[in-house]
Amino acid sequence: MSFINETHDINLKSWVASANQAGTDFPIQNLPFAVFRRKGTNEEFRGGVAIGDQVLDLAAVAQTGIFSGDAQVAVEAANAQVLNEFMGLGQTYWSALRLALSRALREGSEHQTTLANALVPQADVEYSMPCHIGDYTDFYTSIYHATAVGKLFRPDNPLLPNYKWVPIGYHGRSSSIDVSGQAFHRPKGQTKAPDADTPSFGPCKRLDYELELGIYLGKGNELGDQIAIENAENHVFGFCLFNDWSARDLQAWEYQPLGPFLAKNFASTVSPWIVTTEALAPYRTQWHRDENDPQPMEYLESSHNREAGAFDIQMDVLLETAKMREEQQPAAKLSESSFKHSYWTVAQMVTHHTVNGCNFLPGDMLGSGTQSGPEHEEAGSLLELSRGGKESITLTNGEERKFLEDGDKVIMRGWCEADGFNRIGFGSVEGTVLPAK
Amino acid sequence: MSFINETHDINLKSWVASANQAGTDFPIQNLPFAVFRRKGTNEEFRGGVAIGDQVLDLAAVAQTGIFSGDAQVAVEAANAQVLNEFMGLGQTYWSALRLALSRALREGSEHQTTLANALVPQADVEYSMPCHIGDYTDFYTSIYHATAVGKLFRPDNPLLPNYKWVPIGYHGRSSSIDVSGQAFHRPKGQTKAPDADTPSFGPCKRLDYELELGIYLGKGNELGDQIAIENAENHVFGFCLFNDWSARDLQAWEYQPLGPFLAKNFASTVSPWIVTTEALAPYRTQWHRDENDPQPMEYLESSHNREAGAFDIQMDVLLETAKMREEQQPAAKLSESSFKHSYWTVAQMVTHHTVNGCNFLPGDMLGSGTQSGPEHEEAGSLLELSRGGKESITLTNGEERKFLEDGDKVIMRGWCEADGFNRIGFGSVEGTVLPAK
Repeated sequence: MSFINETHDINLKSWVASANQAGTDFPIQNLPFAVFRRKGTNEEFRGGVAIGDQVLDLAAVAQTGIFSGDAQVAVEAANAQVLNEFMGLGQTYWSALRLALSRALREGSEHQTTLANALVPQADVEYSMPCHIGDYTDFYTSIYHATAVGKLFRPDNPLLPNYKWVPIGYHGRSSSIDVSGQAFHRPKGQTKAPDADTPSFGPCKRLDYELELGIYLGKGNELGDQIAIENAENHVFGFCLFNDWSARDLQAWEYQPLGPFLAKNFASTVSPWIVTTEALAPYRTQWHRDENDPQPMEYLESSHNREAGAFDIQMDVLLETAKMREEQQPAAKLSESSFKHSYWTVAQMVTHHTVNGCNFLPGDMLGSGTQSGPEHEEAGSLLELSRGGKESITLTNGEERKFLEDGDKVIMRGWCEADGFNRIGFGSVEGTVLPAK
Repeated sequence: MSFINETHDINLKSWVASANQAGTDFPIQNLPFAVFRRKGTNEEFRGGVAIGDQVLDLAAVAQTGIFSGDAQVAVEAANAQVLNEFMGLGQTYWSALRLALSRALREGSEHQTTLANALVPQADVEYSMPCHIGDYTDFYTSIYHATAVGKLFRPDNPLLPNYKWVPIGYHGRSSSIDVSGQAFHRPKGQTKAPDADTPSFGPCKRLDYELELGIYLGKGNELGDQIAIENAENHVFGFCLFNDWSARDLQAWEYQPLGPFLAKNFASTVSPWIVTTEALAPYRTQWHRDENDPQPMEYLESSHNREAGAFDIQMDVLLETAKMREEQQPAAKLSESSFKHSYWTVAQMVTHHTVNGCNFLPGDMLGSGTQSGPEHEEAGSLLELSRGGKESITLTNGEERKFLEDGDKVIMRGWCEADGFNRIGFGSVEGTVLPAK
């Protein structure tokens, strides 16, 4: 695969010892970006890169002057409270900085002493949104999720005829997206029981998570310009974990004919770390369209997309109830899935989104849609795992759940593995349900 | 009505003579805000207020120092390339500046000589977006539009059961909203003819406008906080004209189950002028819910909303074809309607949007949805006027239209009239269809 370069080499070791430990999310081959500051201070938030259990402070790196050229331009852009400017620079600059960081953090680097002063333990920092998300679009790319949810909302018509032709997406709300650690009050709203004549009002009774990836746009496009599929990935800066909290009872009553609204916009949570598209190169995989299914229209088709357009990003969901926290029990795993099951690739999402001339700005985000796998146990939401609230799930400590209860903390993790390459990880995205106000 | 104050007095005259002419959109009782600069210059964009055929330059006013207190704070905030900071100050500051401007622009004002230097003819300026729209939500508040369009998309099920309970809305795309004068390429995309087995790809064949109002949020709310209906209008800075261009053939194929997406996000156009909620006080009217219809749930009900929650904002749509431009013929009027027909009020939209804790930021925009009136001739889209493309409309010059053709310019205007008060206007929003790329 032509995407592989020296930064992916499994033999690279870092002078940051924790980056070389087996199982770390953040070996030197990863180098994801976040925005951080020291916890409990009034420091300015600024860009940082994860290395082992440390954050490399990009504001400090920018000041050292050890980089030059495109890498220095990039690190200076990343010395900001949001990474939009850096993300807007484009692939050449992202790669230059990645290469410079990889070399400077390697064992034997001449910059070790200088950069050691720019490290902050991850345990001592807090994160903010990595960028300003101007617009956020949520896709619906897991056919397993679309079919399972479709069965619950429309038993006679689960998968609509457009699904296999159109990468279905809809616009989401940006203002209520926050970074991991978000705690939000259970939303209130209108719901209507199937057997009721009129709707009623109150706290959501079917609160759910959705296991998704967030995909950040880097360089944008002008209004009216289409991004061809061959060029689509050059616009994709990187990926994060994304929990698209959902109020299923509100959704069922409100969503026709114009789509989900209050069922989705009360809170959405992203992981602090953005794993770059370049870091994910070793975990690319073939994208396959079943020969019995419609093949993609020409604008959504490319040989590169067939050969390497999918990403095998593994994800899981854990639930930590209030009781588990009290009794210091570990969180219970609910399910595990992979983005490789996606019916549409990231390149197809980007190209479809702009085929009508719609413009992206740096920092815009696409949600992948809930990434449920082919098996029931691989479902990315409680709605699916509980079969529409009909079956309780028994947690490891004996507690039961159909939907989320107050005090529940949902934890999502992501990681990649491939023969001949390191494991890299996404860290986690966590969020907690507070009682309705 | 308690909303009326000295700034609405019909007897006020301005020392700007054009503001006193019958039929002007911008008498001294209006005082709407925009962001402008002198055409063809590299000047910074900054806030301005319309008075007659002039723009009062708020950057220049801020520098004169003639205002004090809240009005001076407000005018300094409006001296910016976007009005978000000013809009976020809240009602007290907006009112203080309006009063100060009203007094300073009146006949006999001691500031006439000073402010005369801060006037720029509207003929000499260009406008930009009045604010950064973080999030844009489109509502669907005309029951006449919802019923007519519903009949075309779902003949057996035009008005869904939730319509009379829920102020239906969905998230829109902010990045492709631009100011009056926007010209955009006809979007391309997937469509499927009703009798076809598979979809096809190409330029939209059913391009349409939608006659809407845009409603700008001023002061926001924290995530998790609901805005009670009694307090909702305090968060509403003002109103503009809004053309929500729509690709009906794309929409029909893509919109289920998650709502309109590429059918809407290729372009949307706002008028440059924002008419403040305070300026609209004389044109408030009773909001009525038919007694045979469900009455609003408690959170959407207030006596103020019943008594004065609706606004009689009249609007019309004109079409100027390429041929009309060539032959210097006037644009043809297509329809006329009023926001007073809206099934839901602005206060109900704001309260419903936040009842689940969703947060607004200053500058966020709500679309009213297409404002079709009760009569067929009052429809706010070609889809309705042409009965789903079945009947051609004959324009004043003999040309015919079912949907928009390349070169068509759509012009929307808005104005208010009430006994005992001046006519005030919104100016216009204009946009032009370019051929597909």
